[in-house]
Amino acid sequence: MTQSTGLRREPRLVTIEGGEGAGKSTVLAALRAELERDGRVTCTREPGGTPLAERVRALLLERVDDAPCDRAELLLMFAARAQLVCTLIEPALARGEWVLSDRFTDASHAYQGGGRGVDTRLIDVLERDFVGIEPGLTLLLDVPVDVGLARMRGRGEADRIESERVEFFERVRAAYLARAKAQTARFVVVDASRSADEVSAQAVDALRRYKASLA
Amino acid sequence: MTQSTGLRREPRLVTIEGGEGAGKSTVLAALRAELERDGRVTCTREPGGTPLAERVRALLLERVDDAPCDRAELLLMFAARAQLVCTLIEPALARGEWVLSDRFTDASHAYQGGGRGVDTRLIDVLERDFVGIEPGLTLLLDVPVDVGLARMRGRGEADRIESERVEFFERVRAAYLARAKAQTARFVVVDASRSADEVSAQAVDALRRYKASLA
Repeated sequence: MTQSTGLRREPRLVTIEGGEGAGKSTVLAALRAELERDGRVTCTREPGGTPLAERVRALLLERVDDAPCDRAELLLMFAARAQLVCTLIEPALARGEWVLSDRFTDASHAYQGGGRGVDTRLIDVLERDFVGIEPGLTLLLDVPVDVGLARMRGRGEADRIESERVEFFERVRAAYLARAKAQTARFVVVDASRSADEVSAQAVDALRRYKASLA
Repeated sequence: MTQSTGLRREPRLVTIEGGEGAGKSTVLAALRAELERDGRVTCTREPGGTPLAERVRALLLERVDDAPCDRAELLLMFAARAQLVCTLIEPALARGEWVLSDRFTDASHAYQGGGRGVDTRLIDVLERDFVGIEPGLTLLLDVPVDVGLARMRGRGEADRIESERVEFFERVRAAYLARAKAQTARFVVVDASRSADEVSAQAVDALRRYKASLA
């Protein structure tokens, strides 16, 4: 399976992706526990994960008058990611640790590419020149948009991106699924419409199979 | 003179560039007064110029532990610039105003390209895909690094970029001069080692010649 992207595949980088209300938090805890059986784990999230990147996250998610235009949003996402990669992810991988990230570059393809309609080639260029690496395993928690949004409504006020319209999230979901279909060597799609326990069990099972494939 | 850069030249966008202590503030006031004889002028600065971009400026210039890595710094600069272009510069140009900016994309070529040594091709790509325009006139206030730094020392605490070493500023100056030499149709180099009055007079004179050339 070639599916070459020009990126360096990092086997010990595992990412979890998914739209609103996909239940990422519960699954992350289960994946972390599974990885810790196997050594040290650095957990992080996007956008954010370093003090600077968390401040960029605040700029991205606040509901303000001077909201970033589509291109500024994309560049801010990649600025936070570049900082996360160089100050946290690459050092942790160099120490031989597992890195588990709540979202990574696929989220830019889904939200800024699919959701906002930013030209995919721009995202590819930023990914190649400013990130340079891709996960060994990406778990996509897929849930129908109406189910995800209904779950999210229980959680208090939505941030700037969570406040988008349903069609936006439909495009995000479609972009995620298209990437998963194009890159089957790296993606596992998990049906996240089930109960939290079932979703976690599916995700942990996929992770175990992945770890076994590396051994 | 072709000197094509693939960017849309905006005749009513005038920028001023230069290293530390080049005396930009005094010159900006004189240029603004000269442009106002000719219609409305929108004045701005980089990084910054919009509420969001000013917050990115703070992230860039603060002296903090989690300082941006070179690539994150470059992306933050371009995020601020993309926001400035789409929310302030392009609307002002569309209204037929002059836009006068204290620094623009040339500063990324000089500081991140020359100063930090970031690959010029990355900067070219960001400029083409996320900025898309270039000034009709760029006034480069050139001053020897030791003269500029001596002027700057009178001004209180230096920010993160101002705290770089002399060799950094030498590379910045060299990169500015190289760009001016490569793009003579757009650049005018002003000898900024002279008195503030003389520098302003030279700059205003260059602006008048430029306006006459447009008529």
